[in-house]
Amino acid sequence: MNASEFRKRGKEMVDYVANYLEGIEGRQVYPDVEPGYLRPLLPAAAPQEPDTFEDIINDIEKIIMPGAASPACTELETVMMDWLGKMLELPEAFLAGKAGEGGGVIQGSASEATLMALLAARTKVIHRLQAESPELTQAAIVEKLVAYSSDQAHSSVERAGLIGGVKLKAIPSDSNFAMRVSALQEALERDKAAGLIPFFVVATLGTTTCCSFDNLLEVGPICNKEGLWLHIDAAYAGSAFICPEFRHLLNGVEFADSFNFNPHKWLLVNFDCSAMWVKKRADLTGAFRLDPTYLKHSHQDSGFITDYRHWQIPLGRRFRSLKMWFVFRMYGVKGLQAYIRKHVQLSHEFESLVRQDPRFEICAEVTLGLVCFRLKGSNKVNEALLQRINSAKKIHLVPCHLRDKFVLRFAICSRTVESAHVQVAWEHIKEMAADVLQAERK
Amino acid sequence: MNASEFRKRGKEMVDYVANYLEGIEGRQVYPDVEPGYLRPLLPAAAPQEPDTFEDIINDIEKIIMPGAASPACTELETVMMDWLGKMLELPEAFLAGKAGEGGGVIQGSASEATLMALLAARTKVIHRLQAESPELTQAAIVEKLVAYSSDQAHSSVERAGLIGGVKLKAIPSDSNFAMRVSALQEALERDKAAGLIPFFVVATLGTTTCCSFDNLLEVGPICNKEGLWLHIDAAYAGSAFICPEFRHLLNGVEFADSFNFNPHKWLLVNFDCSAMWVKKRADLTGAFRLDPTYLKHSHQDSGFITDYRHWQIPLGRRFRSLKMWFVFRMYGVKGLQAYIRKHVQLSHEFESLVRQDPRFEICAEVTLGLVCFRLKGSNKVNEALLQRINSAKKIHLVPCHLRDKFVLRFAICSRTVESAHVQVAWEHIKEMAADVLQAERK
Repeated sequence: MNASEFRKRGKEMVDYVANYLEGIEGRQVYPDVEPGYLRPLLPAAAPQEPDTFEDIINDIEKIIMPGAASPACTELETVMMDWLGKMLELPEAFLAGKAGEGGGVIQGSASEATLMALLAARTKVIHRLQAESPELTQAAIVEKLVAYSSDQAHSSVERAGLIGGVKLKAIPSDSNFAMRVSALQEALERDKAAGLIPFFVVATLGTTTCCSFDNLLEVGPICNKEGLWLHIDAAYAGSAFICPEFRHLLNGVEFADSFNFNPHKWLLVNFDCSAMWVKKRADLTGAFRLDPTYLKHSHQDSGFITDYRHWQIPLGRRFRSLKMWFVFRMYGVKGLQAYIRKHVQLSHEFESLVRQDPRFEICAEVTLGLVCFRLKGSNKVNEALLQRINSAKKIHLVPCHLRDKFVLRFAICSRTVESAHVQVAWEHIKEMAADVLQAERK
Repeated sequence: MNASEFRKRGKEMVDYVANYLEGIEGRQVYPDVEPGYLRPLLPAAAPQEPDTFEDIINDIEKIIMPGAASPACTELETVMMDWLGKMLELPEAFLAGKAGEGGGVIQGSASEATLMALLAARTKVIHRLQAESPELTQAAIVEKLVAYSSDQAHSSVERAGLIGGVKLKAIPSDSNFAMRVSALQEALERDKAAGLIPFFVVATLGTTTCCSFDNLLEVGPICNKEGLWLHIDAAYAGSAFICPEFRHLLNGVEFADSFNFNPHKWLLVNFDCSAMWVKKRADLTGAFRLDPTYLKHSHQDSGFITDYRHWQIPLGRRFRSLKMWFVFRMYGVKGLQAYIRKHVQLSHEFESLVRQDPRFEICAEVTLGLVCFRLKGSNKVNEALLQRINSAKKIHLVPCHLRDKFVLRFAICSRTVESAHVQVAWEHIKEMAADVLQAERK
């Protein structure tokens, strides 16, 4: 949608809201629909080609408004999560479908998704061990629990461990910054021999530092064999899996218990919208189910409805699935794929510019929209380069450490980015680098 | 703002957004401002009388845009939380001010605020006990920790206990559904004698069931004396404390370590916006501080900035303080007070209608906008009444249990509610009650 279309549609929406408020007394306080009313009104999958804005707005009136806030808010979320799951070709087991055990939920952030997965896994292992040995206290079990992730995992994984009160061990990644089965297996054996209880593994697809990928096809089977909950954190990279040429990066998801990525990062859905799927809803909802009278309702034991409050930390919820509905329909799957492809192509364009300059090196394989690079030389000179670039305020880079190397990260992430921006940025970086290298020589 | 003003202003905002996006390439990627730039540009407190919409929009351009998303998003939040804290006459210790140790943060829900307080308290007691006895493991301590709340506390308190892996004990409330010091003291003594470690107390001001108030002036001193973290959950009632005539309900807050209420419930700020204050920021931020390279920044150890990511579960944040800024300025403190007062007056109007009808009884003291009532008679007849009312869909009531009584709850909560609505609702309830009583007699 360009700016002039946005002006037109935005103003129509303002009128829509004003009309709604002016006519609110004529509306019923509670909808007439039955639980499950919404799914049959929607296609089973997102459209390939864009729908028109008129069509979407008309559907709001026809499909959403009769279901008001509840149950429309919940039911649209379940269906949108199925749409998105299908775009990613997630295994059926993760979809809510008609009668499956799995399903998706919108969390606020990947941090919350990781935490919820860890807490569900913690509850599950406690129940299992207490069923085997009823004399075991929760604390006696928790004390021995160990979670694992790669040493490249996001800090939110460590944080989830702190909140959950369990040990988290970092598995040394390989030379491509990927978690491999050998290192994981070694840790598992060592910890089991020490009397500890492995219970949870986070595999990262697209690490924050350099967009590396843990080896799911290796790690997945061992998690299944050992009865460990496998959670996949694909916060950034997940959006790319809607393109067939990148889908192989998700191979092995069939071994996972839960999977998460952030459409708010790279799929044009505004913050916040973190998509999380589980294979067994009951694992998540069983962890913290509490039903005081003021939250009971007539359909709760019917099996037809989803109570997302059991899937998350907060109780209240926003209608975030509307954002997904608008974006998926206005772009169509093909439009979203084109958007991802353009970004990946631009990152490769930047990569090749860097490679053509012998003063620079590429520090990690470029797979999606992130390029890790640096001046060949000391960390000090690269820190100086970063400082000069960010002080000039024409572009902004966020650095990382890869092992002991200080690395600059060039991320393609704007909705309106074009090749010209990449070229300008590279010219600017070269200029700053020349200044830094000259200053160093003095 | 009425509907025609909303149409005008809403459309201006659409143009503002479109203009911004069209001109975005001319803007700098990083702001020029220094940390702390914002506070001196704002008044020290919310205006008493409404500001004009023009003034607020002009201030957006002058005050917010130069600070872009960061640091404006963080700094406005800190100042708005100070404004709101001053409206409530919170003790100075809770405000960020210039050099205090306290401060406020916007959480997504009271559930998250309670959880964060419990986790911070857990970390604090673990550190304290390990400092005294370094041989104690975390698990050995956590196993013995006990948190307390009234038996009327919201289910999110129990949930926080489950997540934190600590015992939560429900203190029997008195005949007014309030937690009193005698019952709490008894539980503390019993648990300490059993070798347990009390560490955390949640006092509720305005319970979900019947808007009862725990006795803070009794409970607070004992928490301080025993070194227990006192958290106050005033999710609903907190908004009323901006009125001097209701501020006494908050007396005793000076004993608390953390305080929370939801402006999204009753202060005209749209969902979500849950306001939480702590007396010692370091207690909260110390619990989960993790600083990977990609989240480091040049000002983090300066003491001049607030990293709200250490105050909450998620990492990312929305610019929710803008909602507070607009609401506080457009209504002014007096406008917000008038709004609260009107609701309380209408709930008393409903209360007196109920009291005039001998078939009904009032089930709990009416203090704010909630009236708990029922037909004198069995739970069954009241359940039938509720079902009939909610099936008719003219009004919607959410019930609760008070002890063994099934109770109907009439909540004044709409922005546009008037006396006429209350009268119509009461006539409708009487009609439904007559039907139910007649059906019962058959």
